[in-house]
Amino acid sequence: MANRALFIALEGGEGAGKSTLQRALVARLEAEGRPAVATREPGGTPLSEMLRQLIRKPALARRFYAILGDESHWDRISPMAELLLFAAARAQHVDTRIRPSLDRGVTVISDRFSDSTLAYQGYGRGLPRPELDEAIALATRGLRPDVVVLLDVPVVTGLARKRAETGRDQIGQETAAFHERVRAGYLDLAAREPLRWLVLDALRPAADLVDAVWQQTSGLRTPPAS
Amino acid sequence: MANRALFIALEGGEGAGKSTLQRALVARLEAEGRPAVATREPGGTPLSEMLRQLIRKPALARRFYAILGDESHWDRISPMAELLLFAAARAQHVDTRIRPSLDRGVTVISDRFSDSTLAYQGYGRGLPRPELDEAIALATRGLRPDVVVLLDVPVVTGLARKRAETGRDQIGQETAAFHERVRAGYLDLAAREPLRWLVLDALRPAADLVDAVWQQTSGLRTPPAS
Repeated sequence: MANRALFIALEGGEGAGKSTLQRALVARLEAEGRPAVATREPGGTPLSEMLRQLIRKPALARRFYAILGDESHWDRISPMAELLLFAAARAQHVDTRIRPSLDRGVTVISDRFSDSTLAYQGYGRGLPRPELDEAIALATRGLRPDVVVLLDVPVVTGLARKRAETGRDQIGQETAAFHERVRAGYLDLAAREPLRWLVLDALRPAADLVDAVWQQTSGLRTPPAS
Repeated sequence: MANRALFIALEGGEGAGKSTLQRALVARLEAEGRPAVATREPGGTPLSEMLRQLIRKPALARRFYAILGDESHWDRISPMAELLLFAAARAQHVDTRIRPSLDRGVTVISDRFSDSTLAYQGYGRGLPRPELDEAIALATRGLRPDVVVLLDVPVVTGLARKRAETGRDQIGQETAAFHERVRAGYLDLAAREPLRWLVLDALRPAADLVDAVWQQTSGLRTPPAS
C-alpha cells in the first residue's frame, strides 16, 4: 500500500449529509495539491450508473426492454438478482475507476461502498451475511476503504432533511423500522472495527466534520504531490 | 426432490444443435402429457434477456444509457462485472422461472446453465475456478440440473454449422483455440461426474439424440400427469 492513495468511504442513512461532506473533503484535498476523485455507489461508471437506474427505476428498464421488442411481462427483480446486480456495478466501479485512480495516486472518496450492502441488504432486509460477504468479496477482490466515515443521524431527522432537500418523500417503500435497522447495523459494523471506522454526529457543523476526517486520516495521507 | 419435476441442461459449443434437441425433447414430453418449458441462458426472463443483450450487444446498452442522459464515455465491461451480470441473470432465471416451474411439476429444459460459465469463463477465458463456483453458488443456491446433456462436436464442424444456419461468422472475437479450450473443458467436467452428464456425439441423427436422452432420464421421470 506504500504508493497507493487513500480510499475513503462515506456511509450513513438518508439525509446524513454525505455528499456535502464529500464536496468539502475534495475541496480541501485539492487546495493542498492532492488529486482526489468523488464518486458514488451504486454508480461511479456508466455501466454502474445504468445498473443503479435499472434497480431503482424499473420503468426505465421496461423502456429499454421495449427497445429489444417485448415489454409485455417485465418481472420483479428477485433479492438475489438485485444483490448480484449491485455486485456487478461495484466490480465495474472497482475495476475501471477506483483501483486505477488509487494506483495513479489519486485519493478516492466514495459516497457509499460495500458497507452499504451490509447495512441495507443485511441488517435492513435480512439477507444472510455469508451471501453478502461472498458477493462483496467477488466484486471487490479484497479492496476495502482505508477509512469508513459513518455520518450518524437519527432516522426521523435524516428523512426530514432529505425531504426538505429534494421535495420528495424519501422513505418510499421502506418503513421507519427498516431505516432504524440500517442505522443500528451501521453502528454495529463501526463498533466491530473501531480503528477503521470514524463515527460522527451528522448534526455537527460541516466544518467540524471535515476537521474530524482530516485528523483521522492525517497519518494515512501521503505527502502532497508538489 | 420427490415431487419436483426434472431439470435438464443442454450444453455444448456453437452449432452443436442444442436448440434443435430442445424442441424435440419438449415435443416428446408434451406428447406424453408431461408439461415442459424450454428456456435458455443467459436469458429466460425479461430482466435476464436484457442482461444478455447488455453483455453481448454493447451498442444497445449505449442506447439505453443515452436515455439516461450520457452516452459519451461508455466503458468496457470488466471480466468480474461480466461474471456477476451473468450471475444476476441466472439468479433471476432460477428465482422467477426455473424453481417455480419445477415446483409446479413442469419439466425444465434449459439451453445452457451453470456449466456454460465453467466452460466459457473458466476453461475458455481462464477466470479462477473458486470465483466461478462462488458466483454460481450465489445465483443458484445449490440448484443443479438432474442431467446435463453435452452435445459434443468438433470445433470446426460446429462453427461451420452455425455459420450455415445464421449466415454470420459466429467465431466473432474468439479464436479457434478458445473454442478448443471450451470443448476440452466440457469433456473434463463430464468426465468428473459421469452419472450426471450424458455425452453425445452431436453429429448423430436428431432422433437418436432424443432417444439417448429419453433412455438416460427414464428412471428420473415422474409418471405422466394424466
